[in-house]
Amino acid sequence: MAKKVKKMKAEQEEVVTFHYDKVGDFSNWFTEINKRAELTDQRYGVKGLVVFRAWTTVTLKIMYRLLEEDLEHHGHLPVIFPALVPESNLIKEAEHVEGFAPEVFWCTRSGADNIFDEPLALRPTSESAMYPLYALWIRSWRDLPFKRYQSVAIWRYDTKMTRPFLRGREFYWIEAHDVFATAKEAEEQVLEDLAITKNFVQGHLAFPIIVLIRPQWDKFPGAVYTVAGESILPDGRFIQNSTSHMLGDNFARAYGVKYVDENEEEQYAQQTCFGPGLSRMYGALIIMHGDDDGLILPFDLAPVQVVIVPIPKKGAKKAVEARCLDLEVILRKAGYRVHFDNTEKRPGEKYYHWEMRGVPLRIEIGNREVQDNTAIIFRRDLRSRNTIPLDKLVKAVKQAGKAVTKELWRRAKERFDNSFKNADTFDEICDIINQNKAARISFCTLEMKGLACAEKIKDATGADIRGVKLGENEKPWGLCPMCGEPATVVAYVGKQY
Amino acid sequence: MAKKVKKMKAEQEEVVTFHYDKVGDFSNWFTEINKRAELTDQRYGVKGLVVFRAWTTVTLKIMYRLLEEDLEHHGHLPVIFPALVPESNLIKEAEHVEGFAPEVFWCTRSGADNIFDEPLALRPTSESAMYPLYALWIRSWRDLPFKRYQSVAIWRYDTKMTRPFLRGREFYWIEAHDVFATAKEAEEQVLEDLAITKNFVQGHLAFPIIVLIRPQWDKFPGAVYTVAGESILPDGRFIQNSTSHMLGDNFARAYGVKYVDENEEEQYAQQTCFGPGLSRMYGALIIMHGDDDGLILPFDLAPVQVVIVPIPKKGAKKAVEARCLDLEVILRKAGYRVHFDNTEKRPGEKYYHWEMRGVPLRIEIGNREVQDNTAIIFRRDLRSRNTIPLDKLVKAVKQAGKAVTKELWRRAKERFDNSFKNADTFDEICDIINQNKAARISFCTLEMKGLACAEKIKDATGADIRGVKLGENEKPWGLCPMCGEPATVVAYVGKQY
Repeated sequence: MAKKVKKMKAEQEEVVTFHYDKVGDFSNWFTEINKRAELTDQRYGVKGLVVFRAWTTVTLKIMYRLLEEDLEHHGHLPVIFPALVPESNLIKEAEHVEGFAPEVFWCTRSGADNIFDEPLALRPTSESAMYPLYALWIRSWRDLPFKRYQSVAIWRYDTKMTRPFLRGREFYWIEAHDVFATAKEAEEQVLEDLAITKNFVQGHLAFPIIVLIRPQWDKFPGAVYTVAGESILPDGRFIQNSTSHMLGDNFARAYGVKYVDENEEEQYAQQTCFGPGLSRMYGALIIMHGDDDGLILPFDLAPVQVVIVPIPKKGAKKAVEARCLDLEVILRKAGYRVHFDNTEKRPGEKYYHWEMRGVPLRIEIGNREVQDNTAIIFRRDLRSRNTIPLDKLVKAVKQAGKAVTKELWRRAKERFDNSFKNADTFDEICDIINQNKAARISFCTLEMKGLACAEKIKDATGADIRGVKLGENEKPWGLCPMCGEPATVVAYVGKQY
Repeated sequence: MAKKVKKMKAEQEEVVTFHYDKVGDFSNWFTEINKRAELTDQRYGVKGLVVFRAWTTVTLKIMYRLLEEDLEHHGHLPVIFPALVPESNLIKEAEHVEGFAPEVFWCTRSGADNIFDEPLALRPTSESAMYPLYALWIRSWRDLPFKRYQSVAIWRYDTKMTRPFLRGREFYWIEAHDVFATAKEAEEQVLEDLAITKNFVQGHLAFPIIVLIRPQWDKFPGAVYTVAGESILPDGRFIQNSTSHMLGDNFARAYGVKYVDENEEEQYAQQTCFGPGLSRMYGALIIMHGDDDGLILPFDLAPVQVVIVPIPKKGAKKAVEARCLDLEVILRKAGYRVHFDNTEKRPGEKYYHWEMRGVPLRIEIGNREVQDNTAIIFRRDLRSRNTIPLDKLVKAVKQAGKAVTKELWRRAKERFDNSFKNADTFDEICDIINQNKAARISFCTLEMKGLACAEKIKDATGADIRGVKLGENEKPWGLCPMCGEPATVVAYVGKQY
């Protein structure tokens, strides 16, 4: 029996090699990392629905908490609305229903044969669930501003190719829905939303954001305009982290969200909504920082921040393990998420396992470290090793943790800065897109009459006009390369996920 | 114009009286407190679906965090499974589908006319979503125990009368699904689940739990047996806070959850699942501790733990407000959720507002307190006032906060201890139930042949056999009062929500 067990162990311990060129073969890299790091399972059996495994979920929960805290800091309170929305609510705002109706999952019966009088939509977004209640709650200018958010799943029957995190039929976000007396306040909220996104993504996820006003043909259905916080993945594609929509009084008129102003006159309210897509941001996070050995996670977001691996030589197993145990206690007390890997696996297998999962720091303890009262700190990002005296360990972990995140930011920022290239002609646009970059062009207009130019670019390259930088008033330098009309804006052009 | 504004203010400031006898007129009390304390809104427009407003949601999120931390402390990791379950998965365990199928919300199409080949169930519980993946993930005895949880909404088309929190068609819970090599370990997990419930409910929600093994006719569909953590509401009815189910290998056989043991033989795994119902527990919380002035919240769970109300007399407004502001900063720094109510309302209206919402402590600052460097602490539970020197304030808040929770526990425990009465005859059972208490009886058996006796009691009184105390081996003292057969157990009988 003992023999059999040994054989099984040996099988289990075999280190499977993982080497995909992330840049050259992104699609395989992404599929493999999902499997090897046990991020998602795509064998759930329904297209576009994936299972988030523990490693993903722990980080996603940390992300939720950070973002919720910041929203609350900015005056939002949490609420929970039902996931099911009656059809009659959904159809009240004409553009909104036109935009979302084709993607709605409909719940039409219970049990075998209790057909509902009115079908219920699984929320594709919650305006139509929330605003009828907002109409009841908001009465006076004293109730404003009114800022609420909910952290929920949403469902959209997307017919494009689905991919874990980036594009699915169920995804996890926060939606904040705010009401104001004036358009000015609402527009300020849109800026605040984007500042919250920027702080979160740049500060915690450690990659840059570009804030773009979307063209009129690509705004949120029912909005006056839409602003997006976007990033550029290493393959040059845009990914939308969050959007914030200036709704004006469009929804207020459809759902009756009114208030009595200081002159006792009834007014339609001005509204905004904000949707940071957390499961998608998690996808961006792993793609942005991962390498050919697996994930690399920013220190604050890693489920395990420090893994301790014993490297015992013969005879010293007990002393090495005791030391590891001590360090685990010390680091846990210092507030870190630390894991002592005392399984039977060989050190090399442990390295592989935790590197694949992106644990930012590894502490290695062998006989020498026990004797010298030192520890080796391995940094996942640089693959560097440093020997540290034990009495400086806690401080060294803190510094190294920060340094990992900083290095990830540096790399992402460098790539980001090299992601854009100016184009003056249609051919140049095509070239830039083919080089997996984003083009920066003088463009006729983001109003609806610019759509024809956008479609020509789309047909030729698969790239979209993603929008115009918010608040920077960039000056166009030539005519629109597509229609030859005078350009009114500098537009960013690229493929997207 | 100024005049008009004044008039509106006066209208808004009018204090609406709230006085329902909670014990005598529970139903109206509950409806009113939901409205007045702004806990839920029942005007969503779909039966059984309610909106959780901010006050409710903040506490619910605190509850989730506490319970999740304890689950993680006990070795569970979080996961997220899709909310939609293919019909073919749901029907794999025969008893399970028979139990749940009539209550399932079915999602049958997307958009106007894309009818799904296979309908998708909105999860009524997640065994059928999770276990097909467990079958893929679990391979060897080394993978066990395997403990995962998710914090999600579930949907059940309940045809009974719905009530916010207590009974609805969408509710919020945690479900933990654990896998073990042996039945012994699984049964120990059931005990651990109940210990987690008990710690959470008794420690944080501050009311007692009674742990009951359910009769065979009232177990979870597909389980070997079900254990429930129940409480008794002030009207004498049972409320189920959580259940834990010993599944044996019933689901393992249906879904193929197998492992290779140390002898290299394939075995079906032993499983448990655990479902603490957080939205229902919140309902129990407000009913358990509320009084005729509104809610009373345990200190750790209150969205606002301390409200500061200024009581300025003429000329001293500025000094009083400055002092309030100082105290707000001091208490916030000390880690408390504190709110300085500096609205234009009269103090009496502010008292009413925050008492209704159950804020455990109120600090009142008037001219005298500013001069004397003191503060008045009002306790919501006792309606008592204490004057405290400012340099002792932080400590006094800590003590008073603990004291509120302790007093709530004392009251709930006293009621709980008076909730049970022994009955020897059918008439005595009826009397006890009519007195809004629970009966404790010698009972023939919890096996299926006891069902006839249970049904007789149910028909006459509306009360159920809730079960037998877990692990206490209480000795029956007579024959079963219903069938006259020798009693094998002491059963608890009562109405339920």
